[in-house]
Amino acid sequence: MILEIATLNVQPGEERAFESALGAARHLIEASPGFHRVELRRCVETPTRYLLFVTWGQLEDHTVGFRQGPNYSEWRGRLHHFYDGPPAVEHYHEPVAL
Amino acid sequence: MILEIATLNVQPGEERAFESALGAARHLIEASPGFHRVELRRCVETPTRYLLFVTWGQLEDHTVGFRQGPNYSEWRGRLHHFYDGPPAVEHYHEPVAL
Repeated sequence: MILEIATLNVQPGEERAFESALGAARHLIEASPGFHRVELRRCVETPTRYLLFVTWGQLEDHTVGFRQGPNYSEWRGRLHHFYDGPPAVEHYHEPVAL
Repeated sequence: MILEIATLNVQPGEERAFESALGAARHLIEASPGFHRVELRRCVETPTRYLLFVTWGQLEDHTVGFRQGPNYSEWRGRLHHFYDGPPAVEHYHEPVAL
């Protein structure tokens, strides 16, 4: 499993509208093969910042399957206009055994 | 509950030593009041980068209780020499209900 983390800076004043739009759009990402889980968290120090956590079976489920899949343009169209600058996206491996 | 996320850039070549040191030091943070959970994940795109996720009961359990507590100087002493630049630390609220 791979954890995608997208840092989303939302235009000030648009936070609640963004949260609602994401709730209404979540089915677009949930329908993509290899999708497991989505979670959105808001930053304490910077309230216009959110982290979107998406768990995928493998990296390519996101980078190829979702981004080149049939729902991506609608996902972008519904959400990207809320962002103040392009999202920063990284992927993380399973937790390290400590 | 509050999720602390620390972005840790580790000196190249020190990744495994850092992971071991964190495993050996985890009891120092686990013993702090309000601690709930710790998880370390390594970045796919930048393998010298880790995210440390720590779940706390409330913000001050980290910012006051741990950072001003009896174990913090030992925690720093064991771990901070692995870092390439100061850690970036943010806190996130519980997941948004989507």
